[in-house]
Amino acid sequence: MRLSLLCAGLLAATPALAVEGMWTPEQLPEISAALTRTGLKLDPAALSDLTGQPMGAVVSLGGCTASFVSPNGLVVTNHHCAYGSLQLNSTPENHLLRDGFVAASLADEPSAGPAARIWVTEDIRDVTDRVLGGIGKKATDRQRNDAIEAAQKKLVAECEADGQYRCRVFSHFGGVQYRLFRQMEIRDVRIAYAPPEAIGKFGGDTDNWQWPRHTGDFTFYRAYVGPDGKPAAYSKDNVPYRPRRFLPLAKEGVSEGDFVMVAGYPGRTQRYQLADQIDDAIDWSYPTQIAIFDDQMGILADAGKNDPDVAIKYAATLAWMNNGRKNMAGMLEGFHRADAAGTKRREENALVAWLKGQGGKGEAALANYRDYVKVIDSQRATRERDRIFAALGVSGLIGSANTLYRLAHERTRPDAEREMGFQERDWPVLEASQRQLDRRMDPDVDRKILEYWMTKYAALPSAQRLPELDAWAGLSGDAPSTERMKAQIDALYASTRLASLDARMAAFQATPAELDASEDGFIRLAAALYPAMRRMEAERKAFNGALARLQPGYMQALIDFRASQGRATYPDANSSLRITFGNVMGVSPRDGLYYQPFTTTRGLVEKHTGEGEFDATAAQLEAIAARRFGRWEVPALKDVPVNYLADLDVTGGNSGSPTLNAKGELVGLIFDGIWESVASNWVFDPALTRTIHVDSRYMLWVMDEVYPAPAILEELGVTPHRR
Amino acid sequence: MRLSLLCAGLLAATPALAVEGMWTPEQLPEISAALTRTGLKLDPAALSDLTGQPMGAVVSLGGCTASFVSPNGLVVTNHHCAYGSLQLNSTPENHLLRDGFVAASLADEPSAGPAARIWVTEDIRDVTDRVLGGIGKKATDRQRNDAIEAAQKKLVAECEADGQYRCRVFSHFGGVQYRLFRQMEIRDVRIAYAPPEAIGKFGGDTDNWQWPRHTGDFTFYRAYVGPDGKPAAYSKDNVPYRPRRFLPLAKEGVSEGDFVMVAGYPGRTQRYQLADQIDDAIDWSYPTQIAIFDDQMGILADAGKNDPDVAIKYAATLAWMNNGRKNMAGMLEGFHRADAAGTKRREENALVAWLKGQGGKGEAALANYRDYVKVIDSQRATRERDRIFAALGVSGLIGSANTLYRLAHERTRPDAEREMGFQERDWPVLEASQRQLDRRMDPDVDRKILEYWMTKYAALPSAQRLPELDAWAGLSGDAPSTERMKAQIDALYASTRLASLDARMAAFQATPAELDASEDGFIRLAAALYPAMRRMEAERKAFNGALARLQPGYMQALIDFRASQGRATYPDANSSLRITFGNVMGVSPRDGLYYQPFTTTRGLVEKHTGEGEFDATAAQLEAIAARRFGRWEVPALKDVPVNYLADLDVTGGNSGSPTLNAKGELVGLIFDGIWESVASNWVFDPALTRTIHVDSRYMLWVMDEVYPAPAILEELGVTPHRR
Repeated sequence: MRLSLLCAGLLAATPALAVEGMWTPEQLPEISAALTRTGLKLDPAALSDLTGQPMGAVVSLGGCTASFVSPNGLVVTNHHCAYGSLQLNSTPENHLLRDGFVAASLADEPSAGPAARIWVTEDIRDVTDRVLGGIGKKATDRQRNDAIEAAQKKLVAECEADGQYRCRVFSHFGGVQYRLFRQMEIRDVRIAYAPPEAIGKFGGDTDNWQWPRHTGDFTFYRAYVGPDGKPAAYSKDNVPYRPRRFLPLAKEGVSEGDFVMVAGYPGRTQRYQLADQIDDAIDWSYPTQIAIFDDQMGILADAGKNDPDVAIKYAATLAWMNNGRKNMAGMLEGFHRADAAGTKRREENALVAWLKGQGGKGEAALANYRDYVKVIDSQRATRERDRIFAALGVSGLIGSANTLYRLAHERTRPDAEREMGFQERDWPVLEASQRQLDRRMDPDVDRKILEYWMTKYAALPSAQRLPELDAWAGLSGDAPSTERMKAQIDALYASTRLASLDARMAAFQATPAELDASEDGFIRLAAALYPAMRRMEAERKAFNGALARLQPGYMQALIDFRASQGRATYPDANSSLRITFGNVMGVSPRDGLYYQPFTTTRGLVEKHTGEGEFDATAAQLEAIAARRFGRWEVPALKDVPVNYLADLDVTGGNSGSPTLNAKGELVGLIFDGIWESVASNWVFDPALTRTIHVDSRYMLWVMDEVYPAPAILEELGVTPHRR
Repeated sequence: MRLSLLCAGLLAATPALAVEGMWTPEQLPEISAALTRTGLKLDPAALSDLTGQPMGAVVSLGGCTASFVSPNGLVVTNHHCAYGSLQLNSTPENHLLRDGFVAASLADEPSAGPAARIWVTEDIRDVTDRVLGGIGKKATDRQRNDAIEAAQKKLVAECEADGQYRCRVFSHFGGVQYRLFRQMEIRDVRIAYAPPEAIGKFGGDTDNWQWPRHTGDFTFYRAYVGPDGKPAAYSKDNVPYRPRRFLPLAKEGVSEGDFVMVAGYPGRTQRYQLADQIDDAIDWSYPTQIAIFDDQMGILADAGKNDPDVAIKYAATLAWMNNGRKNMAGMLEGFHRADAAGTKRREENALVAWLKGQGGKGEAALANYRDYVKVIDSQRATRERDRIFAALGVSGLIGSANTLYRLAHERTRPDAEREMGFQERDWPVLEASQRQLDRRMDPDVDRKILEYWMTKYAALPSAQRLPELDAWAGLSGDAPSTERMKAQIDALYASTRLASLDARMAAFQATPAELDASEDGFIRLAAALYPAMRRMEAERKAFNGALARLQPGYMQALIDFRASQGRATYPDANSSLRITFGNVMGVSPRDGLYYQPFTTTRGLVEKHTGEGEFDATAAQLEAIAARRFGRWEVPALKDVPVNYLADLDVTGGNSGSPTLNAKGELVGLIFDGIWESVASNWVFDPALTRTIHVDSRYMLWVMDEVYPAPAILEELGVTPHRR
């Protein structure tokens, strides 16, 4: 209640600035005044009905958002969200990614891959008491962590009991609240339509985070279920899913100033991190990660140069690294521009000063704050090591071996006691990811990446080293030798069979004893590392328990302090469902420069170089030259709008989210933010934050005139110009 | 008459687009309607009075423009126009370029260098009949060239007879008209004020040709004359020159939409070149020159990296190369964007088609056109060689030796028969440039550049090679060897004394016989090359004679054709005085992007990185942070304007030109054009062409609050805030 009222006041005070806030559905009725004032024409209460119109149509892909747009299970999302599945279906001969894809009929829609999922959220409920109720008063941090994990596992098991749902507990405000999401999980996802990469990724990594933008970042999936209408794994017998809700296309597109909103699953923001944490991000973690990305992108680019097959295998990884690298560089630039570190430090000092004036309650909060800072700072001691094992634990062949070895051990325990992520409910995803490793991994490249990490490991100070790994790599004893380490790595790849799917599938079913008897180098390495991995996990769990003990108190103090200043606090993004709203508008990103709110096809011609990332298709250039814009032309622009800007508050995970107009109709897809926005993940800057959307009129024009998809258009309720 | 009337119509038809045209002063009364309509408040006729207000205050620096701004000979121009003279006065200990300079008193104003000049144009008259009258009907091309040269020398000699003036004949429309300029030549130029390089060249080469821009590109010179008021070489006894006219500072700065005009000396445009010539520029000359600049900038940058002295010596050369390289790349981009080659070709085909319908006169013009194309295309045969010798003839020690050797020979002839550029009137400039070679040349770097050119020479096809140079370099005979060539170059630098000023000054006075007896390697090389240089000169003169025979006919046909379409034709820029006018306005350079017309000090803070080209001074950052903007703040901007855009038609040579408001008062200096404009040198694009000006309010604010110059401010009629 308090948050919402304060928030309405906040909105009224800053009408021309982007509106900070990724609202949970529960909060929407309470901010209805702001929504209506900004331009919403629906009843705001409708937005909190998860199964109603339009929220019932919004789904998660895991890492991206999408929406149903036809009664026949048609789903629209970003091209870059479908990039991996397009890559999975591409071969040098049949290159869906490069050439685009239109299914001739439903039967021709290929699978988006064994790991592809569509999650339809049907219920969210508060489970804070259930999660926190079982923690003993004298619990150690590890016990606290385990109690929370056990409670979550129990809640999830109950929720998933009837086999229809996928459930997950989300923590808000660092553990002040816990919410249980219940989602239907569609496991048969197929590709219905993708424009050629020259449209879907026009501008490529060069234009990523940039404006002016001209990316046709959209692709259509279709959800399939078993003949009984229930979620099922891929099967020829499956039928298109009939969603309860789907988004209607807006009859008219948006204009400058129009209300727009975006519903989706933003991944993670750091709006309430400590000043020490932003310092660490600026001084260490982002620069370090940027250097790692640069190194690894160099390795991948070199490897792909002479081998188109390798290039395809690592295309999605490269795109992800490029995006992450650019994002981090943008954040560092934004931090510098806005003195984010200073701002954070001043805010935190102000909180401390305020608490000092709050009597006994303030004293307790201060003590809690000091402990919290200490725990947060304790991560610095092993951060270099932790970054290496975050990669080695999950990626490539070493990640595969670690996962398989761990799974074998977890399988020996009762399901409820298995580690989260290794329970029976998780096996299909684990299996799918082992299966698709083939399509995303090349042993020679994998070896280079592993050697890269091991070289970094060998350079760690001894306090961060693991005796087990030192012994394996020949880095311990009197004469440690990186040459011997490289020989060990060579031997690893010479002796392993894990690069074959069969070997991985056999290991997927194996017992610990069977794996311990294996001669496979990677399995033996995973076995050798296992005690060390468990030790690091134990440290992590104690740390998480300490966070669970201290972070809610810190966040509550912050909420109270901000409330005392008349400022609202909403939860950081955490991959759970949020709604953000605002208006279509341009921005002056720098002195002397203005980003106009719309781009048009004119810009495609301007940027077209005929090669690389700026190689528009002949069909598109021809349609533009002939001005075959038809009904998609906007008179004021004398052209078809391609992308537009709005002032919404989003982050990664919102990609593919439907952009809705005031009536809840589809007017585009959000797919990016401008470079000047990315630091808003930590410190929101209302003056500079802008989101980038692909205009629904451009999507329809492409499907009508450039890379035609008459059947999809008809399914969307549009009569195609070409048949 | 015809031009002006047509032109007024043209202007009326395109009010919102940049106005093409670099008008000669003679044309101004005739375009008075357009001037007045655009916003001029002066009597347009006043602008053709070269000795009146404001034109009497506009002067040439040779390559740049400047203007008198006080009754005491104070001159304002661009920082980049004074760059060489600031460099000449900089040492690692006393670094004017880096730190800026304010003369404590007149006596402390240092010389801008022996070659620095200020030319005050006092008269322009038509001499077409005098130049062309002496050409015999059956003259060969060489004879035609020589007759034109002789007539020009005679005109110049007459004009300069009383020793007060410097005179020059300019050819308009490729020889349709000739005009004699009479200019007073001020030879004692001193530096009165320069901001630190961090202001005067803020943004450096990175921001060159870019918007948004934040460059304080201004510097003050002062003109000195002898105690008798007449031009004189530098002397302590000289006194400040009292100009007939000086520009008053505008009381109010400009706003968006305001009328502005620029008077100056634009160097060269190619608006009437043949389609073959733009093809050659695109296919050969610009890409080739860009590659040469890149190579040579690499050599210079490497050399300067570890030697600050070398870095200072080549700073101006590097800046010039960087600018030229960026300009050419911008032209190529612009040509591509606008299909300039296709446009030119279509225009030329249309001219041909039109001539075919013009009867006998058309036939004659067509025959002339075909001959003209043939002559133009004939340059292709030796273009690689010609580019090499264009450099070897004039730059570095080899250029110095060639000049000295040629001078000795020319001196043996009566002055009127000496080659233009080697007459007695030219000796002071020749001497000054020999003198300042020391400050701009390092023998090790010079050797690298010479070897670079000689390596290019050695790769020429034999038809373009010179036997004399082949023999010298060991490139002829049965076993040509570039190793021997390099040994020869080594010997050259080992044996020469020309790197010393004394040796050059001795050679400057020497007879041909004395030079022929010299043991100096460079002198011997110049002697060996002399016959070849004369042969190439003879080819050039015959070519120029052919141009003089054919180009006027081609231009007249083009003028007539364009007149038949209602289009005006004005002469290409040729370093003679021109006026251009328009309005302060922004531009959309690309789809989705808008360049706002003003930048402010906010942008300085945004761009400041604390290093390299974006390292604003502490004093400036402090003044901005404290908002010490005083009377220079513009309320609408809430800041001091730094640079602004206008839609004028200018080119290189206009740098430093005063920007005048509707009343002829100073409101800034022009110093650049946006990247999207540079192709306008060949094909004017009214939609994208924008000029960049430093705002007079920024200049005054810098001198008032940042790098104070109270005496200069008072001289400008401004009461300084700090004293």
